Amino acid sequence: MQDNREKNSRKPLMAKFPEVETYMKSCLCDVAHDAEHVYRVLNYALQIAENEANAGGEVDFDILTVACLLHDISRPEQFADPSIDHATHGAVKAYDWLILNGYSEEFSNAVKNCIEMHRFRSNNPPESIEAKILFDADKLEVCGAIGIARTLLHNAHVMEPLYTVSEEGLVQNGKKDKQNSFLREYKYKLEKIYDKFYTKHGTKLAKKRKPAAKGFYKAILAEVRECYRQEV
Amino acid sequence: MQDNREKNSRKPLMAKFPEVETYMKSCLCDVAHDAEHVYRVLNYALQIAENEANAGGEVDFDILTVACLLHDISRPEQFADPSIDHATHGAVKAYDWLILNGYSEEFSNAVKNCIEMHRFRSNNPPESIEAKILFDADKLEVCGAIGIARTLLHNAHVMEPLYTVSEEGLVQNGKKDKQNSFLREYKYKLEKIYDKFYTKHGTKLAKKRKPAAKGFYKAILAEVRECYRQEV
Repeated sequence: MQDNREKNSRKPLMAKFPEVETYMKSCLCDVAHDAEHVYRVLNYALQIAENEANAGGEVDFDILTVACLLHDISRPEQFADPSIDHATHGAVKAYDWLILNGYSEEFSNAVKNCIEMHRFRSNNPPESIEAKILFDADKLEVCGAIGIARTLLHNAHVMEPLYTVSEEGLVQNGKKDKQNSFLREYKYKLEKIYDKFYTKHGTKLAKKRKPAAKGFYKAILAEVRECYRQEV
Repeated sequence: MQDNREKNSRKPLMAKFPEVETYMKSCLCDVAHDAEHVYRVLNYALQIAENEANAGGEVDFDILTVACLLHDISRPEQFADPSIDHATHGAVKAYDWLILNGYSEEFSNAVKNCIEMHRFRSNNPPESIEAKILFDADKLEVCGAIGIARTLLHNAHVMEPLYTVSEEGLVQNGKKDKQNSFLREYKYKLEKIYDKFYTKHGTKLAKKRKPAAKGFYKAILAEVRECYRQEV
């Protein structure tokens, strides 16, 4: 497999935490969770945080920034062993790295808490405002066209098909599929994400993106079904 | 890397050439060029062929079917060594396999010719009617939502990013990008494919799919640019 990620390297984004950024980059392993994903999550988070602060919320921007930068550092561990939860594992990994690099116990614990609770399928709902913002920012990455694109990148990474076909040769729409596929992931996760947000601004951004994702699902299903309609 | 392809296995499609189908399946290596891609190409090809035959064209359905089934058998060789052209390599590989399995010299040569000329970037334009139909059927797989999806699957396979960002932090639209990315592939290849078809039915099917692809490109670019607009 070729690795063309280096060609897309660019200057660090966060002047305040260059060492966190460098560490983050050293941990990433796939294109669905690359440095640009992390930067997008950070950008969304800062937009949401500004909105919350304007409405009177007290957000610690440093905790939020570092939590965003480090939220996916245990993706490689989860890929290597799917029984590992990258949120739980990444929270401890981030805490250990922060303590080792001179950050305070309180700060490191707050970051740990955010990362621990950012996962969609987790039973741990986020409680602190920073944890809620990271959750929403990361979920925006599953919405709209970017959510479709990242799901497909992930599909390729785990070698899952676009759709499944029944024994009779019928293309399944993902709704009742037992086997993993892109269409199943859309019906099980992507389609349902839009009412799971904690913040007002996160909800607003997400809803704006819904038509692009829905349109893509409908288009690909129609195309594939039209193709298979021809009996061979 | 997990390999979940086996879960999606289904009954052979072509009762007439089960051994060709089995051989084809043994050669494939990635989700952008999996057995369902081959079946879609075959289905498109048979639709186009029927249309051509109705208009008085003389199409050999056996040559066309076997050429469709075997057109991507050298993808693994091209992935292992990008200097290898899967069309040229696959044409010889298919010819050798067919001869070894008792197909006639004439038949094997006709299949070889179709596979040799199916590549978009090739300097060898297809000449026979079967070669033109395979070319069009394969190009339909780069159109519309399915074209977007398969390009993203391929992106993940070669670890290319969704887009590139300039030194100044601006998201590039793909038009003048020097580095490979999904947006660049859209501007260089996907956007321009729609007037490259040889057959009437191929052109019709392709044009119907254009809005889905264009809509997705516009949506993802807008989403990403909106995200990066926030200065950090």
